[in-house]
Amino acid sequence: MPATSPPEPYPEPSWWGWGDPARVPALSEAVIGLLRDGLGVREAPGRPEPVRGEELPPVRLSHASVAALAEIVGAPFARSDPRARLSHTRGKSTPDLVRMRAHDLAGAPDLVVLPGSHEEALAVLRFCARRRIAVVPFGGGTSVVGGLEPRAQEFAGLVALDLGRLDALSELDEESRVATLGPGLRGPQAEALLGARGYTIGHFPQSFEYATLGGFAAARSSGQASAGYGRFDELVVGLRVATPAGTLELGRAPKSAAGPDLRQLVLGSEGALGAITSLRVAVRPAPEARVYEGWRFRSFWEGAAVLRRLAQDGPRPTVLRLSDEAETALNLAQPGELGGGGECLAIVGFEGAAGEVEARRAAVAEVLRGAGGQSDPRAGEEWERDRYRGPYLRDALLCAGALVETLETAAFWSSLRGLYERVGAALRESLSAAGTPPVILCHISHVYAAGASLYFTVGCAAAPDPVAQWRAAKAAAAEAIVAAGGSITHHHGIGADHAPWLADEVGALGVEVLRAVKAALDPAGIMNPGVLLPLR
Amino acid sequence: MPATSPPEPYPEPSWWGWGDPARVPALSEAVIGLLRDGLGVREAPGRPEPVRGEELPPVRLSHASVAALAEIVGAPFARSDPRARLSHTRGKSTPDLVRMRAHDLAGAPDLVVLPGSHEEALAVLRFCARRRIAVVPFGGGTSVVGGLEPRAQEFAGLVALDLGRLDALSELDEESRVATLGPGLRGPQAEALLGARGYTIGHFPQSFEYATLGGFAAARSSGQASAGYGRFDELVVGLRVATPAGTLELGRAPKSAAGPDLRQLVLGSEGALGAITSLRVAVRPAPEARVYEGWRFRSFWEGAAVLRRLAQDGPRPTVLRLSDEAETALNLAQPGELGGGGECLAIVGFEGAAGEVEARRAAVAEVLRGAGGQSDPRAGEEWERDRYRGPYLRDALLCAGALVETLETAAFWSSLRGLYERVGAALRESLSAAGTPPVILCHISHVYAAGASLYFTVGCAAAPDPVAQWRAAKAAAAEAIVAAGGSITHHHGIGADHAPWLADEVGALGVEVLRAVKAALDPAGIMNPGVLLPLR
Repeated sequence: MPATSPPEPYPEPSWWGWGDPARVPALSEAVIGLLRDGLGVREAPGRPEPVRGEELPPVRLSHASVAALAEIVGAPFARSDPRARLSHTRGKSTPDLVRMRAHDLAGAPDLVVLPGSHEEALAVLRFCARRRIAVVPFGGGTSVVGGLEPRAQEFAGLVALDLGRLDALSELDEESRVATLGPGLRGPQAEALLGARGYTIGHFPQSFEYATLGGFAAARSSGQASAGYGRFDELVVGLRVATPAGTLELGRAPKSAAGPDLRQLVLGSEGALGAITSLRVAVRPAPEARVYEGWRFRSFWEGAAVLRRLAQDGPRPTVLRLSDEAETALNLAQPGELGGGGECLAIVGFEGAAGEVEARRAAVAEVLRGAGGQSDPRAGEEWERDRYRGPYLRDALLCAGALVETLETAAFWSSLRGLYERVGAALRESLSAAGTPPVILCHISHVYAAGASLYFTVGCAAAPDPVAQWRAAKAAAAEAIVAAGGSITHHHGIGADHAPWLADEVGALGVEVLRAVKAALDPAGIMNPGVLLPLR
Repeated sequence: MPATSPPEPYPEPSWWGWGDPARVPALSEAVIGLLRDGLGVREAPGRPEPVRGEELPPVRLSHASVAALAEIVGAPFARSDPRARLSHTRGKSTPDLVRMRAHDLAGAPDLVVLPGSHEEALAVLRFCARRRIAVVPFGGGTSVVGGLEPRAQEFAGLVALDLGRLDALSELDEESRVATLGPGLRGPQAEALLGARGYTIGHFPQSFEYATLGGFAAARSSGQASAGYGRFDELVVGLRVATPAGTLELGRAPKSAAGPDLRQLVLGSEGALGAITSLRVAVRPAPEARVYEGWRFRSFWEGAAVLRRLAQDGPRPTVLRLSDEAETALNLAQPGELGGGGECLAIVGFEGAAGEVEARRAAVAEVLRGAGGQSDPRAGEEWERDRYRGPYLRDALLCAGALVETLETAAFWSSLRGLYERVGAALRESLSAAGTPPVILCHISHVYAAGASLYFTVGCAAAPDPVAQWRAAKAAAAEAIVAAGGSITHHHGIGADHAPWLADEVGALGVEVLRAVKAALDPAGIMNPGVLLPLR
C-alpha cells in the first residue's frame, strides 16, 4: 500500500533564522576577511539569546474566543504557548529575521489554530469574522515579503491559521496525472508521498525544504526547474478554498472558457481572500535521470541571449539560469579570483526519461557551444549540492554582521537590460550612502518565451538600523523596477512589503477590483489585513 | 516598410448565416437523401427573404443620446441604419440563425458605435453608464453562445460597441516576440499583418476567418493548433481594457507573482466587464513547414489513449484531434461506407522549422504506429482544405431543413469517457423525442496533459420550433456535463446560453465574486447584461 500520509518533516526551523539551526555553516576566514575588508563589516552580533515567554506581547484574544476556537479544532490544536506563538511570528525576510534576533516580537499571533479539515477551517473563519479577529493563514512560514505580518492592531486579536494538519495525498489520478494534496505539506513531504507512487510535482524553489504547497499556490511560487515543469501556478488545476463567506471549489477541467479563470484569483491571493484547504496539482512521472551542468559565457548579456533563444525556440532544459559577472565571481567562493575572468555561469539541467534527457542535453549543448559557451560540469554538481543552502548562508552572514537580502522582478526580454541596470544602480546608490559600497549579485532565474526574471542578492555591512537600511534600498529598487517596466515581483509575492507598489503593477482600478473581490469573500476584512492589498 | 494597417477583411458575413453567402455549398443528392431517409427531414425552408428596414424594432435611444455618441466617435461611426443594426444583431449559434431567418429581430441594437481609440471607447462607456444605456462589445459577431444578445429591455437602449476600427499592429517587439494588436482585427487580418513581418500567432479556430482578436480573448478561444501554439488565453500577455469605471492596463511581465493575475479576469469576461481595446499577444516565427496527416485507429478510446500519451509525454504535434466512429464515418462523405469500418480518424499536424517538423513528425509517427495507428495522408489534406468550412455546411443544412448545432466541453482524462457517454445519451434522448433519432458526432478537439475537450456536432430534422427543440437538447446536455464533472464550455464561452450553469462551474460563491468584480468595473451594470453573469 503506497503512503498517503506524509513522512516526518524536516527539523523545526529556528525562530531567528531560515531552517534547521544545525545547518547554518561556519564562515571561512577568507569570507570573514572579505566581509571586513570588502564590505567594511565591523561588528558580529552572533546568534541571538533565547526568547523568554514573557517577552511576547500579551494575548489580546478573550478567553471566550480562545475557548470557542479550541472547541472547533480540538484543544490540542489551539495553541497559545510561547513556543507556538514565536514560531508563527513573521516570515523569513532579512528584516523579519533582524527583528526576531532583536527580540522585537510585535505582531506575534495570539493563538495558533490548526484545523483538521476544510470544515473546521471554514468554522474558524466564520467565528473570527463574527468577532473581528484577524487571521493569517500559515503554511511553511517562509514568506520573504511580509506576507505573514498582517496589520491586526485594529482587530480583536490575531489567529495564525496553521494548515499543517491538512497534509494528505488524498487522491492520485494517474490517468489525468493529477494529485489532490493538502496545503500543509512541505515540499519534501509532498515529493516523498508522490515519489512513493512514482511521481513528482517538479517544483523546487529555494524554499522547497520548508515552504508548503498552500504557500506555493498562495504566493505564485516558481521553482528552480520552472523551465521544464512550469511555475507552481501553472501546475495547479484545482483548488478548494475556505473563505469567511464560504467555500470556493474551482477547476472542473484543466482549461475552460467558462468565464474568467477564478483559480487565477486564488493563486497569488496570499491569504487575503481565504485559506486554501486542498489543491489539485499536475504531476509527472518521477524522472529517471537528472543532470545539471555548468556553462560559461563571456558576458551576462551574451549568455542571456542564449537563454532567450532556448526559451523561444528550444530545446528547453529543465533548469535554466544564468549568473551575472559579480555573482559568478562570488559563487566561486575563491576570493582570489574575484573580478578575474568576467565570466558568467549558466546552470543547465535536464530531468526526465534517461534517453530523452541525453538527447535533449546533446541538443542544448550544441546550441550553447555554438553560442560560445564553455562546458563546466563541476559547476552543475556544485549547484545541485548547494541549491537550498542560500538561506543558511544568509543566517551565517547576519550573525557575522552583514546585511544580506534578495529581491526579484521580471520583464519582457526587451526591457530586461534596462531593468537590470536601473535596479542595480538604485541598490548601489541607496546602500552606498552608509559607507562602503554593497556587493550586488544577479541572476536570471526563470525564463519564458516572452521574458525572464531577475533575482538580485545584495550584501553590505549592516547599519545600526539594518531594517531601515534595507527598507530604503528596497524602496529605491521598487521604484527602479516600476520605472523600468518590470513586475514588482516574479515569484516572492506582494505580501505587506510590496503592497505600496500594487497599484503600479495593476493600476488603481486593478486594486479596486481586488478590493471588491476581497469584500465579497471576506466582508469583515479579517483575512491577512494589509497583506496583498494596501491599507487605505 | 512592412504593413501596419490591416488588409481588407473577408466579404461581410450574411445576416442569416455564417459568413460570405457565396461560399455556402450546394448539397449533393446523396446528402439530401441522407437527410430525408436517415433523419426524416421533410421541409427545406431555403434561404430567407431579405429583411426590410421597417421590420427592425424601433430605435429606443433618444436623439440626444445618439447625437452625444456621434459627437464622441464622429458622425460616420455612429450608425443606426438598418444594415448596421441588422449586422450587429446576435451571433452565429443555430438558434441565432434560425431566429434571424425567421425575421425575429428582437434585441437588435439601437445604434452601432465604432470608437477610433481607447479614449473614445472609454468616453462611450462613461456616457452610456450615465444614461443607463446597455452596451454590447462587438468584434467578429461570431459568438455561438448568445454572447451578443444582452438583456437590454430594462435599459434606455442598446449600443453595439463595434471595435472594428481598432485594427492596428501598433508594435512588434521582436526580441520578446510580443505583438501589440487591435481587438478589431479578424484572424486573417492579424495573420497577414504579422506574416508580412515573418510572424504568426498560430491561433486558428474554426471561426478564424470572421472572429476578432478581442473576441478570441474575451471568450477564451482555443484554436485547431492549440496543441502546438496554446490556447488564445495562454498567448495573451497584456491587455488594455476600457470599462465604465476607467482603464485597466495589465501585464508588466509574461508571468508575475504580483497578486492574482487580473489578465485572467478579463480573459473570459465576454464584454461583461469592459471592452478590450488593445492586446499584447505572444507571436512566433511563421512556420517554414506545415504538414497535416490523418491516422486511423480501431476505436475512439484506443485513439484517445494515444492522444493522451502524446499530450503527457510528447512528442507533441501542433494539431491533434480525433473523431469518434460516427464523425469519422460521416466525414468520409461517402454514405455507402457509413457504419462500415468503425474506424476513428485522428488529424495530426506539424508546423515549424522544416527540419524540426520532419523530426517531430517522424517521432510522433513512431508512437502512433506503435499504438496501432494507420497513416492516411489524404485525410490530412482534406482536413486542411475543409478546416473552416463547417459553419458553411451548417448554413446549407439549415436551408435544407435540418437542425445542426455544436456544443463542447472539457474534463480531466479520467472523466472523459463518462462525459462522452452521458452527453451523447442526453442529446440522443432529448432529440429523439420529436421523431427520428439524431446523428451525434464527436471529436477530441484540444488536448492537455491533464485532460481534453470534447466537441459534439448534432444533426436532426428541424421540429416546427427548432429553437425550443435545441434549447431542450442543450439543457439536457448541460445537465449531463455537470453531472459527469465536465466544464460547461471549453472554448465557446458562457454567453447568455451557459449563464444558468455558471454556478455549477464555479459555485454560487464564485458567481458572487464575479458579480463583485462587475460591480467594481461596471457599477451601472450596462456591459452586456445577462451575458456571463445570470440575471438575478
